[in-house]
Amino acid sequence: MTEKTQFFTGFEGEQKLQLESGQLLGPITQAYDTWGTLNAQKDNAILVCHALSGDSDAAGWWPTVIGPGKAIDTEKYYIVCPNALGGCKGSTGPSSINPETNQPYGTDFPVITVADMVHAQRALMDELEIPKWKMVTGGSMGGMQALEWVALYPDLVQSCAPVAATGQVSPQSIAFDAIGRTAIVTDPAFNNGHYYGSEGPHKGLATARMIGHVTYLSEQSIDDKFGRKLQEKTEYGYHFDTDFQIESYLKYQGDKFVDRFDANSYLYLTKAISYFDLPKKYGTMDTAFESSKARFLVIAITTDWLYTPEQSKAVVKSLMHLNKDVTYVEIDSHYGHDSFLIENEDLSDSIRLFLENV
Amino acid sequence: MTEKTQFFTGFEGEQKLQLESGQLLGPITQAYDTWGTLNAQKDNAILVCHALSGDSDAAGWWPTVIGPGKAIDTEKYYIVCPNALGGCKGSTGPSSINPETNQPYGTDFPVITVADMVHAQRALMDELEIPKWKMVTGGSMGGMQALEWVALYPDLVQSCAPVAATGQVSPQSIAFDAIGRTAIVTDPAFNNGHYYGSEGPHKGLATARMIGHVTYLSEQSIDDKFGRKLQEKTEYGYHFDTDFQIESYLKYQGDKFVDRFDANSYLYLTKAISYFDLPKKYGTMDTAFESSKARFLVIAITTDWLYTPEQSKAVVKSLMHLNKDVTYVEIDSHYGHDSFLIENEDLSDSIRLFLENV
Repeated sequence: MTEKTQFFTGFEGEQKLQLESGQLLGPITQAYDTWGTLNAQKDNAILVCHALSGDSDAAGWWPTVIGPGKAIDTEKYYIVCPNALGGCKGSTGPSSINPETNQPYGTDFPVITVADMVHAQRALMDELEIPKWKMVTGGSMGGMQALEWVALYPDLVQSCAPVAATGQVSPQSIAFDAIGRTAIVTDPAFNNGHYYGSEGPHKGLATARMIGHVTYLSEQSIDDKFGRKLQEKTEYGYHFDTDFQIESYLKYQGDKFVDRFDANSYLYLTKAISYFDLPKKYGTMDTAFESSKARFLVIAITTDWLYTPEQSKAVVKSLMHLNKDVTYVEIDSHYGHDSFLIENEDLSDSIRLFLENV
Repeated sequence: MTEKTQFFTGFEGEQKLQLESGQLLGPITQAYDTWGTLNAQKDNAILVCHALSGDSDAAGWWPTVIGPGKAIDTEKYYIVCPNALGGCKGSTGPSSINPETNQPYGTDFPVITVADMVHAQRALMDELEIPKWKMVTGGSMGGMQALEWVALYPDLVQSCAPVAATGQVSPQSIAFDAIGRTAIVTDPAFNNGHYYGSEGPHKGLATARMIGHVTYLSEQSIDDKFGRKLQEKTEYGYHFDTDFQIESYLKYQGDKFVDRFDANSYLYLTKAISYFDLPKKYGTMDTAFESSKARFLVIAITTDWLYTPEQSKAVVKSLMHLNKDVTYVEIDSHYGHDSFLIENEDLSDSIRLFLENV
């Protein structure tokens, strides 16, 4: 969290949030960061939604897009980024205290969906007295939230820019996330999710992160960055320590992740992602978008094999079929899914030009 | 092992096998199955090498290719399939007794390579009084052994048919195998590889197998077979049990695997695969093949993203550059890497026609 992270607690007392599962959840605190100022017309507010492992510090994880003079210009817009419901960076999630037990929820936390995250953000929008979002955007899981915003609150979204996202998570992606969750829940330190106060399932979480990380990189980016290069030597070690640089890199990523992320949040957020399926929820993709009056900028990455260009095009086709105002941009990048977080002029220019005309 | 599995123990006494690592290993037992009869000219012997999780029962795991009247006709040829060195189906591996301690080797077993497997098979060839292989073939890791046979013993191989293999394992494949090994070694039941007599790292091995299994399937085969279908219901469960059929399938595959495979063998065999790199070992791909007089049939699968058609084509290009006799067949199949184990007329016809003219 940044120095200026703020907190809003809603859904208190009888006012609990009814989740998609039917369960009630409250109170719900959302940690959020803001940049810029809401203008007098209150028409310059932009909601930025983060990805699986992100947080409310959008200018921190998206510095190539958000900042003074940048595509999402902090001098022109009022930018809001909440930590997602279910997360572990200040918003209510499985590591929060369950008011009924005064202990962390752990796996007593209810299973949530992307729509539940959006409903929570809707309350924050009221709190900030924002009548309408000029734009809702985000990458990966953040883009799913952007799409769900349009479906749930078509009158509150003037434009929508999902980046490296999908309207329906693929079975292969479900598979990888399910394996990551298996690694976590089969770690004996998981203790059925009630591990707070002890180390927790760090090994399982690190393995899950390693799996995720491979899906964020393209085959070509692995080839270019690591190839079959060995660690500081030219001959094989003939042991089970890390030999290859790609092994070392992934282990480093896994080990680093456990210091900053809660394993239960990883379970809940990947489950929300696996459940994300607009056609299932709304009957068809068209039904999800038909009431929207928003302009759309759908951005995909050529080498993204997690949420593929084909999946973005399925969203675009539906919007075209509905005669909505939609622009599709496919960013030619070698870096795979993670390209959306990497400096890319086509990406930032697209958002800038789109936003200037919303 | 089948009823007719035989055993040959070599490298006894002073005659240990010098491994690529420089370590010495012996005695080495190889479990092997045979079909058919070695003819008087001793020119009808075919060596079939198995994949990571295979065994010596080649007619069992490759019934679409091996049998009476089939492509590799058990009525015409003398077919030999050994369990690979390092495996756990009868050949010497980490679960074998270390003669120095009278305990299972565990991780005291030396790290082996595909070339070490081939050197062990060379001794079996002598034992069976086979002067030359009419063909060496196999899928996946089996195809790597076939290629290494040609490189190590160019005078002993009349033809070589690697299927869904590669001459150089890709960094992405190294990454997935390294994550699988991480899941195993971080399972507390691993006990540094000395788990024999107790349950062993079943959870880590199951996770490793789940990761591997996703890489054996194409995205399309997952879509076609499972899609986003739920387990015997139409609504989400909102829990962390298996919701999706693909989750349930992978968990079943993982759980089933631990009953028939040794976690240490998984470590050693995937390490041998990660190390497989003919250009590194021989200087260039061309150098590996230049002394060969064999005919080649290189078979790849269109949707194999583990050992891709591009990787097979790199082998073919080298052979063409050397003006070797090579045929390349790309099997059009939706099933991904595992296609080589599935009934496919193009695959079996290719091997049959190739073999008729060797």
